[in-house]
Amino acid sequence: MPAADRFSGVFAPVITPFHEDLSPDPERLIAHCRWLLSEDVGLAVFGTNSEANSLSVPEKIELLDRLVENGIDPARMMPGTGCCALTDSVTLTRHAVNSGCGGVLMLPPFYYKGVSDDGLFRSFAEIIERVGSADLRIYLYHIPPVSQVGVSVELVERLTRAYPDIIAGIKDSSGDWNNTLALIERRGADFRVFSGSETFLLRNLRAGGAGCISATANVNPAAIRRLYELWQTPAATELQRELHELRDCLPMPLMIPALKAVVATFLDDPEWETVRPPLTPLGRDHRDLLLKKLAELKFAMPGRSAASSSRL
Amino acid sequence: MPAADRFSGVFAPVITPFHEDLSPDPERLIAHCRWLLSEDVGLAVFGTNSEANSLSVPEKIELLDRLVENGIDPARMMPGTGCCALTDSVTLTRHAVNSGCGGVLMLPPFYYKGVSDDGLFRSFAEIIERVGSADLRIYLYHIPPVSQVGVSVELVERLTRAYPDIIAGIKDSSGDWNNTLALIERRGADFRVFSGSETFLLRNLRAGGAGCISATANVNPAAIRRLYELWQTPAATELQRELHELRDCLPMPLMIPALKAVVATFLDDPEWETVRPPLTPLGRDHRDLLLKKLAELKFAMPGRSAASSSRL
Repeated sequence: MPAADRFSGVFAPVITPFHEDLSPDPERLIAHCRWLLSEDVGLAVFGTNSEANSLSVPEKIELLDRLVENGIDPARMMPGTGCCALTDSVTLTRHAVNSGCGGVLMLPPFYYKGVSDDGLFRSFAEIIERVGSADLRIYLYHIPPVSQVGVSVELVERLTRAYPDIIAGIKDSSGDWNNTLALIERRGADFRVFSGSETFLLRNLRAGGAGCISATANVNPAAIRRLYELWQTPAATELQRELHELRDCLPMPLMIPALKAVVATFLDDPEWETVRPPLTPLGRDHRDLLLKKLAELKFAMPGRSAASSSRL
Repeated sequence: MPAADRFSGVFAPVITPFHEDLSPDPERLIAHCRWLLSEDVGLAVFGTNSEANSLSVPEKIELLDRLVENGIDPARMMPGTGCCALTDSVTLTRHAVNSGCGGVLMLPPFYYKGVSDDGLFRSFAEIIERVGSADLRIYLYHIPPVSQVGVSVELVERLTRAYPDIIAGIKDSSGDWNNTLALIERRGADFRVFSGSETFLLRNLRAGGAGCISATANVNPAAIRRLYELWQTPAATELQRELHELRDCLPMPLMIPALKAVVATFLDDPEWETVRPPLTPLGRDHRDLLLKKLAELKFAMPGRSAASSSRL
């Protein structure tokens, strides 16, 4: 299996638009995905920042179908398919493969805590065996601050030994650079290690990593792509600094409502601010402060910002 | 709305049997539920110890339908219906109400961490409004050691003020007796506070609580029921001590595989040991030790133990 079929570069965990009645909005999602692809950013739909865990399996299947039907290239998609329930993960993963997705991003089952690596291995193995497709490429999703259940370096070793053609890489959202480095160094270039944000992008690429999958790519794709392309040039350090500067404007842990507020503002489209419970909208004070900071940085969303000049 | 329609007593979060191919086994589940009801223990199917979060929504609906079709009284059922996704929680809760279930046990959405009480309130409120049935009775499920997202006393206050007829009680699996006590004292007798295990049963009843929902009721229902009935008699302290003694035999955090191993042993039915990933079976060493301890306590499962004398 050639490593050439594996992903690298910059991906956005695509934010999911909702109508005011909280139903998913395929039209706005298609438009957003089209813009991200035009910026050469891949589509990690149904990630954490997509509110994917607030969507049912049928809702995710419907959205994926609508994207593909509307010409969004599935080869550029890495949908999240890891659920609590084994059978849900199998259903979603199978659908992603059958839809032609270039890979899937897979959380471990995350409800039961303190489970063993044996149990997690068995979970991933069952999904792989049940999907039973040589076209499946899994990018493991390690995000212990949210899922609480992680994917250890030792588990990655076991899985890649057992399924070398299927286990294609990992997204490391641990926030622990040493963990990312251990993954890159121990697994080699055919195993694609993505940082969970652009914060570590330059370090990731210099160490031999594959890129990043970052929430901020939803609003700042061009600048992140630029660093990805120019990381070996003298401009790289300054580009990384500018990425930090923009990221620092976005309030944590309110990243999702903040990203939606930015898109809503630049498109002059308030419906984009809608989030599903248990999340709550950003609120006016946070939004005003965010927009003020972005204005100071002369932030823009080219090709996505008809209303930008009047809003900032 | 009379408080008489609310639950009290002892409930088992009913363990879910699987076939060797990991599909749910309705036949064994029906037999287990029938036995639990004969011991006057209610059915909290699809709880944490039911591996409910390893089951898909269609699997849970199918199992609930099979139980009801086979004469298991839905009025004695409190199925777990709280999922990560709002739409899943609505689907399951609506199905439980339409099936005649006496109540539902509802986790908060548990993937996104650090969410506000406003967001959780909105989540529960959306489910209640969408189900839109006066027959709905919600027992909130507070289990921060597993779900990480809890249901605070303040959130309980807000929900009961907004939906006094719907929000019927809570299962407190925090392991923090002071939290249970605060819930009992602040909410009064019409709000049914269940302890998350029999460890606090006597204290719960003396303080004015409603009973317990405990994993060990899957194997030890009669003894737990006995304390529930005799808590005001001099025998109560000794009965509580005996419950502790048995519970201490069951290895944590391996409670689910241990309970299944006990049932498998007493029924001489090894298929009962099957668990879904990410859980793993108990293993021979743990099982042998467990059975030795149970034999020392002269533990039995009357009416469920044809094979017991030969196995212990």
